[in-house]
Amino acid sequence: MTRHRLLSLTIGLTTMVAGTGLAQAASSNEPIQPVVKAKPQNAAVVELGKKLYFDPRLSKSGFISCNSCHNLSMGGTDNLKTSVGHNWHQGPINAPTVLNSSMNLAQFWDGRAADLKAQAGGPIANPGEMAFTHELAVDVLQSIPAYVAEFKSAFGSDKVDIDKVTKAIAAFEETLVTPDSRFDKWLKGDKKALNKEELAGYKLFKDSGCTACHNGPAVGGNSFQKFGVVEPYKTTNPAEGRIAVTGKDADRFYFKVPTLRNVELTYPYFHDGEAATLKDAVNTMGRLQLGKQFTDEENSKIVAFLKTLTGKQPSFQLPLLPPSSDKTPRPQPFN
Amino acid sequence: MTRHRLLSLTIGLTTMVAGTGLAQAASSNEPIQPVVKAKPQNAAVVELGKKLYFDPRLSKSGFISCNSCHNLSMGGTDNLKTSVGHNWHQGPINAPTVLNSSMNLAQFWDGRAADLKAQAGGPIANPGEMAFTHELAVDVLQSIPAYVAEFKSAFGSDKVDIDKVTKAIAAFEETLVTPDSRFDKWLKGDKKALNKEELAGYKLFKDSGCTACHNGPAVGGNSFQKFGVVEPYKTTNPAEGRIAVTGKDADRFYFKVPTLRNVELTYPYFHDGEAATLKDAVNTMGRLQLGKQFTDEENSKIVAFLKTLTGKQPSFQLPLLPPSSDKTPRPQPFN
Repeated sequence: MTRHRLLSLTIGLTTMVAGTGLAQAASSNEPIQPVVKAKPQNAAVVELGKKLYFDPRLSKSGFISCNSCHNLSMGGTDNLKTSVGHNWHQGPINAPTVLNSSMNLAQFWDGRAADLKAQAGGPIANPGEMAFTHELAVDVLQSIPAYVAEFKSAFGSDKVDIDKVTKAIAAFEETLVTPDSRFDKWLKGDKKALNKEELAGYKLFKDSGCTACHNGPAVGGNSFQKFGVVEPYKTTNPAEGRIAVTGKDADRFYFKVPTLRNVELTYPYFHDGEAATLKDAVNTMGRLQLGKQFTDEENSKIVAFLKTLTGKQPSFQLPLLPPSSDKTPRPQPFN
Repeated sequence: MTRHRLLSLTIGLTTMVAGTGLAQAASSNEPIQPVVKAKPQNAAVVELGKKLYFDPRLSKSGFISCNSCHNLSMGGTDNLKTSVGHNWHQGPINAPTVLNSSMNLAQFWDGRAADLKAQAGGPIANPGEMAFTHELAVDVLQSIPAYVAEFKSAFGSDKVDIDKVTKAIAAFEETLVTPDSRFDKWLKGDKKALNKEELAGYKLFKDSGCTACHNGPAVGGNSFQKFGVVEPYKTTNPAEGRIAVTGKDADRFYFKVPTLRNVELTYPYFHDGEAATLKDAVNTMGRLQLGKQFTDEENSKIVAFLKTLTGKQPSFQLPLLPPSSDKTPRPQPFN
């Protein structure tokens, strides 16, 4: 596409949205778009999914739930380099945030799950995570009368199966978006929402090329990119990224670009969790991906901008889980 | 006290409450009293305590919070025989429910903590539980600006110390009472709140002598009693109860009588968690404590009554935890 055609297209798009008011027009030329509020879903399915998300009975031990590693009190992460799994297994990779994960082009760092539903089944059956099986998890749920009633009202059938379980968890996760960050307010036309330093940080973020990968409403999550473009990334973590899915050598060390939404809350950073602070992460990304050594002042500005990406966190009542029945298979944490 | 004096006292008490209406009068002769709603406390202290209760940064690993083993989605317990601690340590004893624990005469099965504040510091520093130290936990909190601000508004000082931490957690825990169970409605005069079987179960519960220990508003929690009165209790669990606190041989195998409030939710039962179901627990208690072998029908009635003790569970928004700062010491789950 020539620069002229691109310009025409941009003008055309700008004209198209002109009727929808200043707010959208203001953001239409930006590489980042505001997070859109979650659309109302089937409430019964979402409520069921919320309970399942918090229920450690989906693990062999009865101790680990989805929320253990994607903790909604903590930006949808566990804030650990890599997660703690069954029998204190040390996880192989940093747990990505569940917040806004519905916007990802695929799930997991290597994109091996096409969507949230496909992802949700993974940890349940992973021996180093929840260490259960889909069959046993379903047996547990099927033995709990109040769950069976909820499956019935959510799906019209009281037969529990893993398809319904993961569908419900995914439906809940789709509600976990974080609109109304200060940056989004700015995008929508509230020019006072950011201060001078934050705006300078945003300009630097764009001008330095960060938005080449961190763009769209999730500020990432929409492409796989090589980690270590200008310089290789040195880590003891053995993960090789997308090659594990495609088998193609060209995909070695390609990872899904993480969202930067709520990045203030989702430390530590990178697939190995080795960057403890935003300052470290910005410094490393500048050097390795862009060949830039940001000054402390530049780094501070970019970090100040990144902190404006913290949106309204999902807010809901702590779910109350239905009790097991006498027939429910008991958790086995220690054998 | 002679029977005559006791009778006079009872009549006197009954007369005293006569003016407060039918509801109280109806329950004044019962060995169990309704749970009283939590009194409003200092809201800033309670809110801070709620966050601390859910914050895994009070553990060395950054993975275990108070709520891990006293899960408020699950009756304030972990529903495990004994808990999972740091490095997957197998806990020595069943985690008692935090619900209504403010009514206990002391905390822990052996009563070694005088109150909730004294209890709260225990697991933080227990190497097999949260495996941290009070000093390190305070260092973490002191490094988090939003916590410091909350300590300031709750206590008037931005100096974090373990005294304030445990005071706040205890203040939150004091709100975790469960009024309005069906049984309490019945106690307050709603005679339709229980069905025939449940009422028969309550009568049997009293007539069999269960109320000798399980009485008061918490239906327990107000005395230490020997486990295995008529027959010794056989268990591989090495806990010896109150003797660990008093050093007196007479206190061997004396444990705090657990509350039966919400007992439907707080399985498995006994200090070793070896009774998986209420049926098992009622059967064992009948034999060992009262020398009674309940028939299946009697057992069912008592269980039906016990399930009417499930009260209104604490209901609140999942707390959002303030993020760590660059200066916050990082969790150490694996070393």
